[in-house]
Amino acid sequence: MSSHPDQGHRRTGRRPGESSTREAILASARRRFAEHGYARAGLRDIAADAGVDQKLIAHFFGSKQTLFVMAIGLPVNPVDVLTGVLEGGDEEVITERLAAVLTGILEQPELVQRMAALIRAAATESQVAAMLRDFFPGELLKAVRGQLGPGDRPLRLNLFGSQIVGLVMVREVIGIEPVASKSAKPIAAAVAPTLARYLVGPLSADER
Amino acid sequence: MSSHPDQGHRRTGRRPGESSTREAILASARRRFAEHGYARAGLRDIAADAGVDQKLIAHFFGSKQTLFVMAIGLPVNPVDVLTGVLEGGDEEVITERLAAVLTGILEQPELVQRMAALIRAAATESQVAAMLRDFFPGELLKAVRGQLGPGDRPLRLNLFGSQIVGLVMVREVIGIEPVASKSAKPIAAAVAPTLARYLVGPLSADER
Repeated sequence: MSSHPDQGHRRTGRRPGESSTREAILASARRRFAEHGYARAGLRDIAADAGVDQKLIAHFFGSKQTLFVMAIGLPVNPVDVLTGVLEGGDEEVITERLAAVLTGILEQPELVQRMAALIRAAATESQVAAMLRDFFPGELLKAVRGQLGPGDRPLRLNLFGSQIVGLVMVREVIGIEPVASKSAKPIAAAVAPTLARYLVGPLSADER
Repeated sequence: MSSHPDQGHRRTGRRPGESSTREAILASARRRFAEHGYARAGLRDIAADAGVDQKLIAHFFGSKQTLFVMAIGLPVNPVDVLTGVLEGGDEEVITERLAAVLTGILEQPELVQRMAALIRAAATESQVAAMLRDFFPGELLKAVRGQLGPGDRPLRLNLFGSQIVGLVMVREVIGIEPVASKSAKPIAAAVAPTLARYLVGPLSADER
């Protein structure tokens, strides 16, 4: 799995040893999630493996969900992003929000690189793929089910994810031009209507 | 690279030795394309490496493009598929055709597996990624440029590819439910409007 480039500056202002404690928790979380999947990995076991009090997990990460997101190296929590994007508004408003969020992500190469590292790992390590299968779309679905469009809501989230994964593959993993070097805004503007339709729009042409 | 599961039964009716000649050509094509890229790999060199007359490449594969598609293990030639899909008709007609073609592909697990093998290879082997970068979208663009919608046509093809790659990632490489096991038709119906819009529709919400 990828390392965490944000840890350097996050260390500022913390007591000595906090950074290594945090890293030890992330390392045992990665092992436990890989071995047992998201649902069955226990915070108590993760804390025990890291040799720390379980309360420190809450202190550093807040929740099991955030711990997972950090452990697998995702630069943003997809549950938080989707919850924010879907907070009220019609398909048009949601399209605008998605374009803005996606532009923000694509403009930060290190975020795209971390997503690419995770996708590469999922393509080659069966344990990483299994972790993602276990986490998505369960956690996402729980958080946003009521705000998705009608019909097959798990399918909606899958298709949303497929477009994000494919975009990172073309821009960063394979690196096909022009998407590999093009500025973020026109790419995000072209992809946002797709993402919005998958979330809340008509799922097929028949439903229009 | 993946092997070619169709070769066993294709051997039927051929003279002895044809299958091994064909395989030798594919093997040297894979090496040459990987080393020199699509554009700079020469058919004369590929034939020489395989120890065969260059005419045999035309006999077995017809064109350099088809040889490349077979060598990298793609189950269908994306240039042929796109040319057929875009042959006249508005966005609605093209959406219907795409839904039909995609259903046909998704209903054949061995085709999806071969696409997945190529995507896995592209995610991990830089030479495979380089071959794809060199082939796409140049060959596609040459074939269908006049039938694509206005604006940034290479971007249109990139985004088309990104949705296909992402769909194969979710369905086959990572295997996230429900897309991993769901029947082909509703998935294809949901994805086809996206693909059609990328090819010929308004590229962003502003253009609607």
